Amino acid sequence: MVGKVYIVGAGPGDPELLTVKALKVLKEADVVLYDRLVGEKMERFLKEICREAIYVGKGSKENGSVRQKAINELMVKLAKEGKTVVRLKGGDPFVFGRGGEEVECLIKNGIPFEIIPGLSSITAVPTSACIPLTHKGKSSTVFVMTGRNLDDIGRSALDGTIVILMGKERIGEIAKRLIELGKDKKTPVAVIENGTLDSQRVHFGNLENVGEIVKRRVKGVALIVVGDVVELGMMFNSKRDGSSQTSSRPP
Amino acid sequence: MVGKVYIVGAGPGDPELLTVKALKVLKEADVVLYDRLVGEKMERFLKEICREAIYVGKGSKENGSVRQKAINELMVKLAKEGKTVVRLKGGDPFVFGRGGEEVECLIKNGIPFEIIPGLSSITAVPTSACIPLTHKGKSSTVFVMTGRNLDDIGRSALDGTIVILMGKERIGEIAKRLIELGKDKKTPVAVIENGTLDSQRVHFGNLENVGEIVKRRVKGVALIVVGDVVELGMMFNSKRDGSSQTSSRPP
Repeated sequence: MVGKVYIVGAGPGDPELLTVKALKVLKEADVVLYDRLVGEKMERFLKEICREAIYVGKGSKENGSVRQKAINELMVKLAKEGKTVVRLKGGDPFVFGRGGEEVECLIKNGIPFEIIPGLSSITAVPTSACIPLTHKGKSSTVFVMTGRNLDDIGRSALDGTIVILMGKERIGEIAKRLIELGKDKKTPVAVIENGTLDSQRVHFGNLENVGEIVKRRVKGVALIVVGDVVELGMMFNSKRDGSSQTSSRPP
Repeated sequence: MVGKVYIVGAGPGDPELLTVKALKVLKEADVVLYDRLVGEKMERFLKEICREAIYVGKGSKENGSVRQKAINELMVKLAKEGKTVVRLKGGDPFVFGRGGEEVECLIKNGIPFEIIPGLSSITAVPTSACIPLTHKGKSSTVFVMTGRNLDDIGRSALDGTIVILMGKERIGEIAKRLIELGKDKKTPVAVIENGTLDSQRVHFGNLENVGEIVKRRVKGVALIVVGDVVELGMMFNSKRDGSSQTSSRPP
């Protein structure tokens, strides 16, 4: 009999931010295939709780689509052997996670599947950093984009909160474009480095200086929040309790 | 000694979609204050696992800000009695959840607090309904708005996926506005009713007929997804395995 594949969101990295349902299927599965994006802390946790956990992240010499093809083939092969497979992806599998492409492959091969949502970094990382995405009088919308395609920046997003994934390399350029489009150059920006992990750091700045801040200080994975809500985040961070996390402000 | 308040996201309604961390603090807290938005299934679960769970949802005759003031006062009172308090909010507390307003109140009163993110319905509901928010060649951005302020609809969102919360009453008007702004009237739309619950139903349509579909068929809480990714969602839903959930298509 063909096995089933669970496509599961791991959340942003902290194993405690797995859902109860994800934890259950991870423990029950015959084999777990996991990404680089789940992070090292999660990797150690998986080795403890899973029967078999296989790393299928991208190696340095491969390109993304070659690796994706290999992952798809392995999922199908294991399911056809009758195994219950968990395909564990960082964040939520259907939010900037290419989960749809894996589902297309399972459907093509007649493999039964189920999707289990995870905490997407687009919400969980700002919340963990104590920055609300919406707040009365500050913002009632959220626009989410990646740093890969600058054409995705549009005028309508200018009034609300903007969340940028994978934008570290091009944040200077993105900020410049937002200013050109009419956004105030003093609009507050937060760069959340290694969100939800013990090494989480929140860097505060504005559209004018964020490029420089990122270049000088940010080494890890970063999620960037632009908008007036960041002011609240600065205030909340300065007052929060018992946090081991450090925040840095612009010089 | 003053107690601590945990502001915790309950996720979209299914208790299995609580995070491991949320479950831990719910079990350890002296008292849990929960919203109507956490849902009935979660409410039953809380009564089982918590020491004390108090409903603080809005009554039919109150207005929101009166109720919010009462919740704030109760949180502060309990914390000042030295209790560990969980303030459990639907979804994620900092994403359309007014969690920021509660944090402001805790800071003003010198109460230590911690925020624990939850699965926001903006990502978890579409994923549970097997609809990717982004997909190669379909959409690389997500714009999130509520149905409360139609001025939030803007041009830049037209190319990517749009997620609308609390939009059931005005979806006809919103769809009309999107068509006027240039969106194709055949753009696929999914209305996800009672997302993640046993009673979840996914209704498929397009911008032209979604108003009528919602008026005729949707009784519960609804989250609406607009964009080409919905086509994939229709296909995935038709092929998914072992799901008890029903989907309906336009007549």
